[in-house]
Amino acid sequence: MLRKRIAILGSTGSIGTQALEVIAANPDSFELEVITAHNNADLLIAQALAFKPNAIVICNEAYYEKVRDALKQEDVKVYAGANALNSVVEMSTVDMVLTAMVGYAGLQPTIKAIEAGKEIALANKETLVVAGQLITELARKKGVNIYPVDSEHSAIFQCLAGEFHNPIEKIILTASGGPFRGKDTAYLRTVTKAQALKHPNWDMGAKITIDSASLMNKGLEVIEAKWLFGLRYDQIEVVVHPQSIVHSLVQFQDGSIKAQLGLPDMKLPIQYALGYPNRLKSDFPRFNFLNYPQLTFEQPDLESFRNLQLAYNAMEQGGNMPCILNAANEVAVSAFLHEEVGFLEMSDIIESCMAKVAYIANPSLDDYVQTDKEARARSLELVSK
Amino acid sequence: MLRKRIAILGSTGSIGTQALEVIAANPDSFELEVITAHNNADLLIAQALAFKPNAIVICNEAYYEKVRDALKQEDVKVYAGANALNSVVEMSTVDMVLTAMVGYAGLQPTIKAIEAGKEIALANKETLVVAGQLITELARKKGVNIYPVDSEHSAIFQCLAGEFHNPIEKIILTASGGPFRGKDTAYLRTVTKAQALKHPNWDMGAKITIDSASLMNKGLEVIEAKWLFGLRYDQIEVVVHPQSIVHSLVQFQDGSIKAQLGLPDMKLPIQYALGYPNRLKSDFPRFNFLNYPQLTFEQPDLESFRNLQLAYNAMEQGGNMPCILNAANEVAVSAFLHEEVGFLEMSDIIESCMAKVAYIANPSLDDYVQTDKEARARSLELVSK
Repeated sequence: MLRKRIAILGSTGSIGTQALEVIAANPDSFELEVITAHNNADLLIAQALAFKPNAIVICNEAYYEKVRDALKQEDVKVYAGANALNSVVEMSTVDMVLTAMVGYAGLQPTIKAIEAGKEIALANKETLVVAGQLITELARKKGVNIYPVDSEHSAIFQCLAGEFHNPIEKIILTASGGPFRGKDTAYLRTVTKAQALKHPNWDMGAKITIDSASLMNKGLEVIEAKWLFGLRYDQIEVVVHPQSIVHSLVQFQDGSIKAQLGLPDMKLPIQYALGYPNRLKSDFPRFNFLNYPQLTFEQPDLESFRNLQLAYNAMEQGGNMPCILNAANEVAVSAFLHEEVGFLEMSDIIESCMAKVAYIANPSLDDYVQTDKEARARSLELVSK
Repeated sequence: MLRKRIAILGSTGSIGTQALEVIAANPDSFELEVITAHNNADLLIAQALAFKPNAIVICNEAYYEKVRDALKQEDVKVYAGANALNSVVEMSTVDMVLTAMVGYAGLQPTIKAIEAGKEIALANKETLVVAGQLITELARKKGVNIYPVDSEHSAIFQCLAGEFHNPIEKIILTASGGPFRGKDTAYLRTVTKAQALKHPNWDMGAKITIDSASLMNKGLEVIEAKWLFGLRYDQIEVVVHPQSIVHSLVQFQDGSIKAQLGLPDMKLPIQYALGYPNRLKSDFPRFNFLNYPQLTFEQPDLESFRNLQLAYNAMEQGGNMPCILNAANEVAVSAFLHEEVGFLEMSDIIESCMAKVAYIANPSLDDYVQTDKEARARSLELVSK
């Protein structure tokens, strides 16, 4: 079997480091070709020394010399600057690009990778949230497959194996409910950054952990699922499942439901996306019902957790509205992490921003770039108030 | 699309009548070619008048004239006697045979159908329990697919769609636990036929309902699963799941688990087996988590419910031992339904019979026939004691 040659955009983050573990554990299946990082030069250097990729990118140019000097004995091309991402994804020695950077920054290199005909392992949900129509049309035109890495979307995708000819009636995305499940708005108004960063089941980066606490993560996933699986607004449900064992479900037109389950462990969906359609043998810890004698399910509370409702609204309105939602959320989360706004004020900022930035029904890529800029500017104004 | 032409062996039973509903609801997909019944001549006549099959069989020859006379205005061939089953399954106008008769009687016509190259929708688990090796080898040789109809095996089979290249680590069969879940042997010693016939979730025939109450049904399913999916003894687990929503699960070698879920409704697995690989649109009632906020799972109690342990023992010993187990169980259940033995005595009869009938490591079909006869005779002796 030929080894799949992988480029990891965002190799120093939570997904990136776990992807490197998967690649290290499966040397017969994968070859690491490219790694990139935003700011974490030290870890990027260490990864380059350990994994011997052909090329690396440090996006923050201030670290270029440091990285170059540290690797001058190595046979590795060192690039700097965000634009370099657009070049490395096109390299002829790359088969698949794992997009594991955080937020809107994933959009442009993902487009470049699809245009270059590379398979995509998509861990950057914002790419589809912001520009789902553009991306999925481009991928279809280029004959490029997009393999989801998010555990929920991987679950759906796993359930669809062998079923692509069978119409989906609906999908059910599970949500842990985060650390504030069952809390009311009076409580939510007072929660701190430290409380919000304590996710009950998943160990993830800061931005996605806050999004999980506010249910915006589930909102973004709903929009992502719409594009990945070609669904209508009313075919996507969310159910709160605090144990995070059932990762999501698909209901087909005969009424049958398939689900994918397992312990919360991102290495499994990463490995599935990289190795598809083969399930590689793993030593990941196994799920056991004796440790989970009860699996529980409840409706999400859309009144206390307004972000999820805002995401449904943005999806229903379409156009550039999810892009506005996403930009406003990125600014709001950053402000919350800097303790400039409270937990509930994040929803206020997003809702105001959605009302203020001009709606575009059929945006071009330039429109998305403009929308993103404008929404960020508006949101920053709202933060400073 | 060509309509699939179906023969239903056992059309007047629980599976048979539900299969007729499925066929009636999907006239563009299915055509009813043959129906057969053991004793229920009245219902067989009514079905023949309603569904206009080409041929019918009444196995009990005492009813032949009644059936023939009732249908003399109809364009339908009427046969009598169990041997006629072996002929109708070979008819050139039959594409698929649904084996929905009860017990050991399913073995011979299933072999004939496979030899004639017909697809098999297998609702008669005893066929694989008794002669799994012989049947699966024959099916492989003839290039015949066997589609499971049992809800648990259908669940596994649905989870394996698109995954046949991926090794199975283990399967987990769910069991409702039946009406006596959590009861001890002191209680079980006293239970009546009427109590045992009240299954909490499934409405089924009498024999399988008693088997569900004693967990022998799960034991037979474990053996059936071994042959259907080519598994080892230690790759098949049973977990008690009282709500009967998760119908069974598969764990692959990457650790990922897939499950099939839904309301307990046999029409779904019947339709899936008949329509495979297409999921036909249905109006079956849909599952909703709001009605099932808790799904629970527990270990089976192999000490109080010895039948499941006996089935595991028979599977491990192999050869004609599962045939002995099955014959002894059929006699024991019949005796319990006639109130000749108590609930726990069923296990005593099976265990004694397994110790007494001669073990054959590599039985031929004749050996199975002899083993079945001898085991029944021994079991009847044990009943009369």
